[in-house]
Amino acid sequence: MSKTSIPTVGIIGAGQLARMMIQASISLGIECRILAKSLDDSAALISPNVEIGDPNDPIAIEAFAKKCDVVTLDHELVNVEGLKLAIEAGIPVQPTPETLRYAQDKLYQRNQFTALGLRVPKFKALVSESDLLEFSSDVGWPLVVKSATGGYDGHGVWIVHSEADGQVLLNQLWGNGLRVFGEELIDIQMELAVLLARRTTGEIAMYPVVETYQKDGICHEASIPAAISNEIRTSAENIATVIGEHIEVVGIMAVELFLDSQGQLTVNEIATRPHNSGHLTIDGCSTSQFENHMRAVMNWPLGSATPIKNSVVMVNILAAGEKNPLATIPDSQSAETAIHLYGKIPREGRKIGHVTSIGDDREEVAPRARSIASKLRGDS
Amino acid sequence: MSKTSIPTVGIIGAGQLARMMIQASISLGIECRILAKSLDDSAALISPNVEIGDPNDPIAIEAFAKKCDVVTLDHELVNVEGLKLAIEAGIPVQPTPETLRYAQDKLYQRNQFTALGLRVPKFKALVSESDLLEFSSDVGWPLVVKSATGGYDGHGVWIVHSEADGQVLLNQLWGNGLRVFGEELIDIQMELAVLLARRTTGEIAMYPVVETYQKDGICHEASIPAAISNEIRTSAENIATVIGEHIEVVGIMAVELFLDSQGQLTVNEIATRPHNSGHLTIDGCSTSQFENHMRAVMNWPLGSATPIKNSVVMVNILAAGEKNPLATIPDSQSAETAIHLYGKIPREGRKIGHVTSIGDDREEVAPRARSIASKLRGDS
Repeated sequence: MSKTSIPTVGIIGAGQLARMMIQASISLGIECRILAKSLDDSAALISPNVEIGDPNDPIAIEAFAKKCDVVTLDHELVNVEGLKLAIEAGIPVQPTPETLRYAQDKLYQRNQFTALGLRVPKFKALVSESDLLEFSSDVGWPLVVKSATGGYDGHGVWIVHSEADGQVLLNQLWGNGLRVFGEELIDIQMELAVLLARRTTGEIAMYPVVETYQKDGICHEASIPAAISNEIRTSAENIATVIGEHIEVVGIMAVELFLDSQGQLTVNEIATRPHNSGHLTIDGCSTSQFENHMRAVMNWPLGSATPIKNSVVMVNILAAGEKNPLATIPDSQSAETAIHLYGKIPREGRKIGHVTSIGDDREEVAPRARSIASKLRGDS
Repeated sequence: MSKTSIPTVGIIGAGQLARMMIQASISLGIECRILAKSLDDSAALISPNVEIGDPNDPIAIEAFAKKCDVVTLDHELVNVEGLKLAIEAGIPVQPTPETLRYAQDKLYQRNQFTALGLRVPKFKALVSESDLLEFSSDVGWPLVVKSATGGYDGHGVWIVHSEADGQVLLNQLWGNGLRVFGEELIDIQMELAVLLARRTTGEIAMYPVVETYQKDGICHEASIPAAISNEIRTSAENIATVIGEHIEVVGIMAVELFLDSQGQLTVNEIATRPHNSGHLTIDGCSTSQFENHMRAVMNWPLGSATPIKNSVVMVNILAAGEKNPLATIPDSQSAETAIHLYGKIPREGRKIGHVTSIGDDREEVAPRARSIASKLRGDS
């Protein structure tokens, strides 16, 4: 990139995260180029620079990267060999393959975080039938079985209630070629997410700790500030800093944490890209996670991650059947709630957008956000 | 447009206003289509749906409009016959040609507003040499000569200090085929802008009155709240409502007002589109002028125009020579200032972006915005 030209950031994948990266890039004068599976993908609908290609195809990734100044990712399901070819060709990729491995392989992540001295749920790789029996004798039933790779939004996670059920599941998963591990079922009091942006200089912008609400593994709501003590807040931030520096993340990293009934924090998993829990930063913080992701990837100074109001609440819009929210934008002038739609065709349970309300008091802000989300979903 | 499809809004013109309309439309799931003069235009750089065409060509406008559900404008310099052809073809155009005439023809606007009982500067159409003499005997020297059409950012405005100078100027302007009028030079204490969004139902969203700072006819800064009494504020809002309803504007309308040393408000001129004084609404109000323009044009319920902080200050980035701000994004993490670049090639004095700071106290917010704008301009 010459100093007088517009920089080009390539994004592999074209979901709503890429869509919101592109939207943020407009203000920064960054040109985004997208590697999409289809022209109907959420980000492809709004991008003038779309290339159709398979994120599992290393040759497609290399060819795509060569048209960019730097490459980043919409999701983790990307062929690492392709990223390495891009780097060999002189195109920086952020997150790097080494960093990305933590997000791609939950078992690797667990082993590394354990070695780092972080508290993670008890876990055990399940490679033979005796492993399950051994692990269950340690953590009891029910327990969790997870796929080491490929999971998202509750996919790749199973709650298992007995040895018999577990063996049936494991044989099926092994038959599908999956690497799996067992995990203790934690008595979760609250789920938290810590987001930070980090660039190659080591500069970090730390977002307020987010309180999240999942259902069936899918994020439904996110809220700042989290209703936690300052001690827990500091501890959560420290965990995120330790991880971010250890994995040398560049861009946004999200650390999902469980707070148990004993007040202890356990690291669930991380993402090395913008994260659903950070969507509230668009309307609720000085600089959104999407803008700071692009700044970090460009190695530009980061923007402030400070919240702009006392309370910020985001509610996902999960489609109710095939109703289209476009025809039902609610009367919201009195509601001070920002609407974000992703251009996706509604399908039962699909994330098709989110809303964010800001204000002084969570007791007032949260119902407001839920009400608008419900109207957009077509509930009334 | 079918209820299940994505609506398409056509925008004639591809400057930074269209660029920011497109950016806002992403969140609403609206597809924008652009009629641009060049692929390098600010909005064309970020749009997947660009058509190259001349906004003075009625046939080009009609053909463009037929691919859209509704058409709106980036600027006023658009062929009205083309808009009428689009309407005849069944495509709504907002603002309508009748509304647009107020913004296109300042002399028509002055005559209509006078008939409406609004205070405007003393003015007189200048069609013969005796007109200038007659008008100067009424308002004295210096006085202002303005082109009835085509002016923007200080273009089409001349301060004239004597009869002799005035006649030379007039003969030149008449020779160029321009319709011109004289205007008294007002003792301006403060310049204000009132922005509102209005849709076909008559619903209005009124933005906080903006205090603006022009230099050589170009907006340099804008700030809310304006440092005026509640009486003047109410009066300014009433003027905007009267005008908006009279001209039946749909979309954003901006009314530029002079506040003189006697505390009287005079209507300078109006724009029937998003306006530079409203750029601070992107980061400073619940719903930006760009989002509300698109909502209004779609006849969707308007979003809240409430400010989100006590003080919001916008500073334009006017290029200093050909330095490119992209290489100089300042270290702004502590500065909580939003940066907006337009993708324009820098040229001395050209508006290439703006910054907006928000906070509790204007005395702290304004210098912060100026400092970041200055760094982006490359001053230090």
